Amino acid sequence: MKRLLPDWLKHYRADKLSGDLTAGLIVTVMLIPQSLAYAMLAGLPPEIGLYASVLPLIAYALFGSSMTLAVGPVAVASLMTASALAPLAEQGSAQYIALAAQLSLLSGVMLLAFGMLRLGFLAYFLSHPVISGFISGSAILITVSQIKHLFGISSASPDVVGTLRDLITGLPQANPATTVIGLGTLVFLVMARKWLALWLQKLGLSASLAGLLGRLAPMAAVIASIAIVSGFNLAQDAGVRIVGNVPRGLPALQLIMPTSEGMAALWLPALLISLVGFVESVSVAQSLALKRQQKIVPDRELLGLGAANVASALSGGYPVTGGFARSVVNFAAGANTPLAGVVSALLMAVVIAAFTDLFYNLPQAVLSATIIVAVTSLIDVSTLKETWHYDRADAFSLLATLLGVVLLGVEAGVILGVALSLAALVWRSSHPHIAVVGRVPGTEHFRNIERHKVDTLPNLLALRVDESLFFANAALVQSKIETLVARDPNIRFVLLLCPAVNQIDSTALEALTQLQSSLQAKDIKFMLAEVKGPVMDRLQGTTLGQRLEGLIFLSAHDAFCYVGRQSPA
Amino acid sequence: MKRLLPDWLKHYRADKLSGDLTAGLIVTVMLIPQSLAYAMLAGLPPEIGLYASVLPLIAYALFGSSMTLAVGPVAVASLMTASALAPLAEQGSAQYIALAAQLSLLSGVMLLAFGMLRLGFLAYFLSHPVISGFISGSAILITVSQIKHLFGISSASPDVVGTLRDLITGLPQANPATTVIGLGTLVFLVMARKWLALWLQKLGLSASLAGLLGRLAPMAAVIASIAIVSGFNLAQDAGVRIVGNVPRGLPALQLIMPTSEGMAALWLPALLISLVGFVESVSVAQSLALKRQQKIVPDRELLGLGAANVASALSGGYPVTGGFARSVVNFAAGANTPLAGVVSALLMAVVIAAFTDLFYNLPQAVLSATIIVAVTSLIDVSTLKETWHYDRADAFSLLATLLGVVLLGVEAGVILGVALSLAALVWRSSHPHIAVVGRVPGTEHFRNIERHKVDTLPNLLALRVDESLFFANAALVQSKIETLVARDPNIRFVLLLCPAVNQIDSTALEALTQLQSSLQAKDIKFMLAEVKGPVMDRLQGTTLGQRLEGLIFLSAHDAFCYVGRQSPA
Repeated sequence: MKRLLPDWLKHYRADKLSGDLTAGLIVTVMLIPQSLAYAMLAGLPPEIGLYASVLPLIAYALFGSSMTLAVGPVAVASLMTASALAPLAEQGSAQYIALAAQLSLLSGVMLLAFGMLRLGFLAYFLSHPVISGFISGSAILITVSQIKHLFGISSASPDVVGTLRDLITGLPQANPATTVIGLGTLVFLVMARKWLALWLQKLGLSASLAGLLGRLAPMAAVIASIAIVSGFNLAQDAGVRIVGNVPRGLPALQLIMPTSEGMAALWLPALLISLVGFVESVSVAQSLALKRQQKIVPDRELLGLGAANVASALSGGYPVTGGFARSVVNFAAGANTPLAGVVSALLMAVVIAAFTDLFYNLPQAVLSATIIVAVTSLIDVSTLKETWHYDRADAFSLLATLLGVVLLGVEAGVILGVALSLAALVWRSSHPHIAVVGRVPGTEHFRNIERHKVDTLPNLLALRVDESLFFANAALVQSKIETLVARDPNIRFVLLLCPAVNQIDSTALEALTQLQSSLQAKDIKFMLAEVKGPVMDRLQGTTLGQRLEGLIFLSAHDAFCYVGRQSPA
Repeated sequence: MKRLLPDWLKHYRADKLSGDLTAGLIVTVMLIPQSLAYAMLAGLPPEIGLYASVLPLIAYALFGSSMTLAVGPVAVASLMTASALAPLAEQGSAQYIALAAQLSLLSGVMLLAFGMLRLGFLAYFLSHPVISGFISGSAILITVSQIKHLFGISSASPDVVGTLRDLITGLPQANPATTVIGLGTLVFLVMARKWLALWLQKLGLSASLAGLLGRLAPMAAVIASIAIVSGFNLAQDAGVRIVGNVPRGLPALQLIMPTSEGMAALWLPALLISLVGFVESVSVAQSLALKRQQKIVPDRELLGLGAANVASALSGGYPVTGGFARSVVNFAAGANTPLAGVVSALLMAVVIAAFTDLFYNLPQAVLSATIIVAVTSLIDVSTLKETWHYDRADAFSLLATLLGVVLLGVEAGVILGVALSLAALVWRSSHPHIAVVGRVPGTEHFRNIERHKVDTLPNLLALRVDESLFFANAALVQSKIETLVARDPNIRFVLLLCPAVNQIDSTALEALTQLQSSLQAKDIKFMLAEVKGPVMDRLQGTTLGQRLEGLIFLSAHDAFCYVGRQSPA
C-alpha cells in the first residue's frame, strides 16, 4: 500500500506544511474566478469549471513529477474545447457538456498512453516559435471573443472578422450598466497588475507578499461586483447579464463511454489539446523546478496530466492542464509539495458543496475582464522580435502559426505551424553549404578557397559538404559537383570531404553511385575522405563502397598526397 | 519569330533526320496499343488515349529539355486519373471525360507555374524509396485491376481485396474464348520479352535491332488478335469483349474552363500526378541524357510537361507524362532530337484521321495483357532488397508506401510515404550522436573516450554533438548534458564541440541559453569550440553570445589549455 504513495507524501516533513497550506489557499482564491471564467470561455456552464478544479488537482498530485505545477482549467485549452465542440453541439446543451467530458477522457487516455510508451519526446516536435505563435494567436482570439461581454453585446460570429464587425455595429446598443462594470473591472485589473504590488510595498509589505496580494485583484473584483449588482438589483433593473444559478453540491462520479461518432470527431482536437497542454505544462514546471534545483520527468508529467484529465472527465469536468499564472503564484506563495494542490482541491470542494449561491449575481462582464487581462499577458511580442533578429525562417513560422490561429482557428493554426517547422528543416537541409577547399600551406588543414589562402592541385577538385546527405539534397549536391567538373577540363580527381556528413540515406547513396559512374565515364576518379565511422560501416557492402575501394581516405591530407603521387610531375 | 523556336530546331542538321524518323515510327507502333490500353485503364474511351498522343508530344518537343523523352499516356498517371475521378462521375460518361480533361489542365497549369517559379527542386522531396514503393504499389494495383479482363469477368470492386474476391468467385463464369485470347497474349508477350530478341539475334539480326523488334510484340498481338476475332466472328458468337467503335477524325480543340467544384475535388490529385509524373520523367530523361553527355534542365522539364498537359486538355485528352519504356525505345531506335516525338505525333494523327475502324475488333483482353506485361516489369524488388540491407528506415518507408498504395489507394499511399520520409528525417536528427571526448596524447586531436585512449581533465566535461541543433533535438541535448554534469561533482567546465553543427535554430538557442544559466548557477563554466562561421555570426548579438564572450574557442585544444590554466595545479 505504502508503495503506491508518491515520494513526496512518503517523505513528507511537517516543516513543509505551512508553505503548502498558504499556497493552496492563495491559489484557490485565484482559481475560483478563473474556473468560472474559463468554463464560460469554453461555452460550458460555470459549475463545470468548478468541477474541473477538484479531482484533477488530486490526480495530478498523485502521479505528476512537479512540486509546484498548478493544474486546472486554463485559457488556451478552454478555447480549444470551444473550437472542437462548436460544430458538434449547441454551447451549454447537455450534449455539449457530455462531449466536453469525452474530449477530456480522450485527451487523458492519450496522455496516459504516451506516458506509458515513454513518448514524452514527441512534445519536442513542436518548436518554440510554433508554440509562441500558437499561444499569442490564441490569446488574441480569446481577447476578441470576450470584448462583447464587456459591453453586453451579442455576437454569434464564429470568426474574428465577423466578431469585430458585430462589435462595431453593436456598440450603439451596448448595455450602459454592463459597460460601466466591464470597463471598470478591466481598468481596475490592469491598474492592479501594474501598480498594486508597488503600492502595497510602499505601505510596508514585503515585495513577495505584495506581489501575491496583487494577484488576488480578480477575487476583489468578483466580490465588489457581486455586492454592487446585488445592492442595486442591476440584473433585473439594468439588464446586466449575470452568472445566475450555479448548482450546489459535488458532482456525481460518472462512467462515460466514448461514442464512435465522438471519437471520430474528437481524436484530433484531443491530440492537439494533449500535446499543447503537455508542452505548456512541462515548460512551466521545468522553469520553476530549475529555480529550486528540482527535476521534472517528462514521462511522469504525461501520466500526471493524463490522470488529471481522466479524473476531470469522470467528475463532469472538461480538459485541464498546468496553468502558467497559477503555477507561478503557487511557487511564490511557498508551495513545497503537491499537497498545496490537494489543499486547493479540498477548498474548491467546500465552495462547490456550500457556497455556489454566492456567485448568482456575478456579472459575466467581470469574468470576461478577468480573462482578457490574464490572456493579454500571454501575447508575446518580445519572442517575435528576438526570433526575427536571430532566424527569419523561425520568425516566419511563428507569424504563420499566429495568423493561422487567428484567421483559420486553433487546430489549423497549430497544424500549419508544425508543417512549417518541418518544411523549414527540410528546406535548410536541402540547401547545404558546399565549399571548395584547399590545403593551408605547411599544415594538414583544409579550408574554403574563398576565405583562406590555400594550396590546390590543378587536377583535383576537393569539396566539403556541411550537411548529412539525404533525399532532399542528394540531387543538388550531385548536380553542383557535375557543374564544377564540367567547368574545368583539367580535373582528373574529385574529392568529397565528409566530416559533417552524419548519414547518407539510400537516395543519396544512389546519387553518389550515379555520380561515381558518370565521373568514371569521363576518366575522373571519385574519392571520399574523413568519412565518419557509422557512415563508413554502412558504405561497406554497397556497390559504391566496392567501387571506391582504396579511394576512401582517413584525412584530406592523405587524399592530397595520393593525388600528388598519381599525377605526372 | 526565330527566337521562339527551340534550340534543337534552330540548329537542326540533316544527318539527324534518319534517326529521328526511324525512332518516331517505332515509338508510334508501341504507342498505338499502349494509348488504347492506358485509356481503358483510366476508365476512358479508347480514342481519348489516341488524342493524348498527338498535341502533347508536339508541345513537349517545343518546350522540354530532353532530346529523347517520349511523352504520352502512361500506366501510373492513368491509374491516378481513374482513382481521382472514381468518386466524381461514372467511368466513360461525358462528365467523366470532361473531368479528365480538367485534371490534365490543372496538372499542366501547376507544372507551368512550378517551372516559372523555378520550383523544380520540389521533386527532390520525394525520396527514392517512396518513389520506388509508389511505382511498385501502383503496378500491383494495376495488375490486379486488369486480370479480370483476361478472363472476361466483371468486377466493380474499388479495392484490391474485393477485386481478388470477385476474381475467385467469378472464375467459373469466365468466358472461354476471352480466356484463350487473354492468357495466350499474356504468354506470348512474356515469351517475346524474354526470348524474342535473343531468337532474332540468332537469326542474324544485330543486338540493337533485335531488341527494338522485341519491343513491337504488343503490336503483333494486336494485329493477330484483330484478325482472329474478325475471322471467327468471336465478338458476336463467343462473347469476346472488344474495343468497339472508335470515332474517326481528329478531335476539335476545346477551351475548357475549370469549374469550382472540379478545382476543389481535383487540385490534390492534380498536384500528385504532376509531382509523380515530373519525378519519373526527369529521372528517365536524366539517365538517358547521361549516356550521351547531354543535360536535363529540371525547370525546363516542368515547362515541357506542363505544356504537354495543357495541350492534352485542349485536345480532349487526359494527363500525360514521360513514359519509361517508350523513352528507352526512342533512345535505342536512334532518336537525336524531339523531332522524333513530332514524327510520332503526326503518324498518330494520321491513324486517328483515317484508321480507327481497324481497332473495332480488338479484344480488351489483349490490351489488358499488354498493360500487365508492361507494369509488372515496374515492380522493383531489387531496390527493396538493397534498401533493406542499407537502411531499415528507408526500407520501411518504401514498404509503407507500397502497402499504402495497394490497400488505401494511390493518393493516400504517396502522402503516407512523404510523411514517413519526413518523420524519419526528423526522428534521426532528433537522436543525435553525442560523444564525450578527450585529447589524443601528444596531439591537438580530440576523440571519443569510448573508442580511443585519450587524456581528460578531471574538472572538464568535453562533448561533441554530431548534428545541427534544432527544435527536435535541443531538449534532448540539454538534458543529456545536465545528466552527465549531475553525475560528476568535480566538473567545473563544460565544453561543447560544434564541428558538425551547421545551424542552431531559435529553439536550440533558447535551450543552450537555459543550459548556460543552470550551469552558471552551479558555478560551472559553459564553453563552445569549433563553431562554424555562419553559426558564430548569428550567435553574436544574442544573450548567449554575450554571456559566452571569451569562452568560445577556435579549437578544442585552445579550450583544453584554457581549462588547464584556470585549474589549481
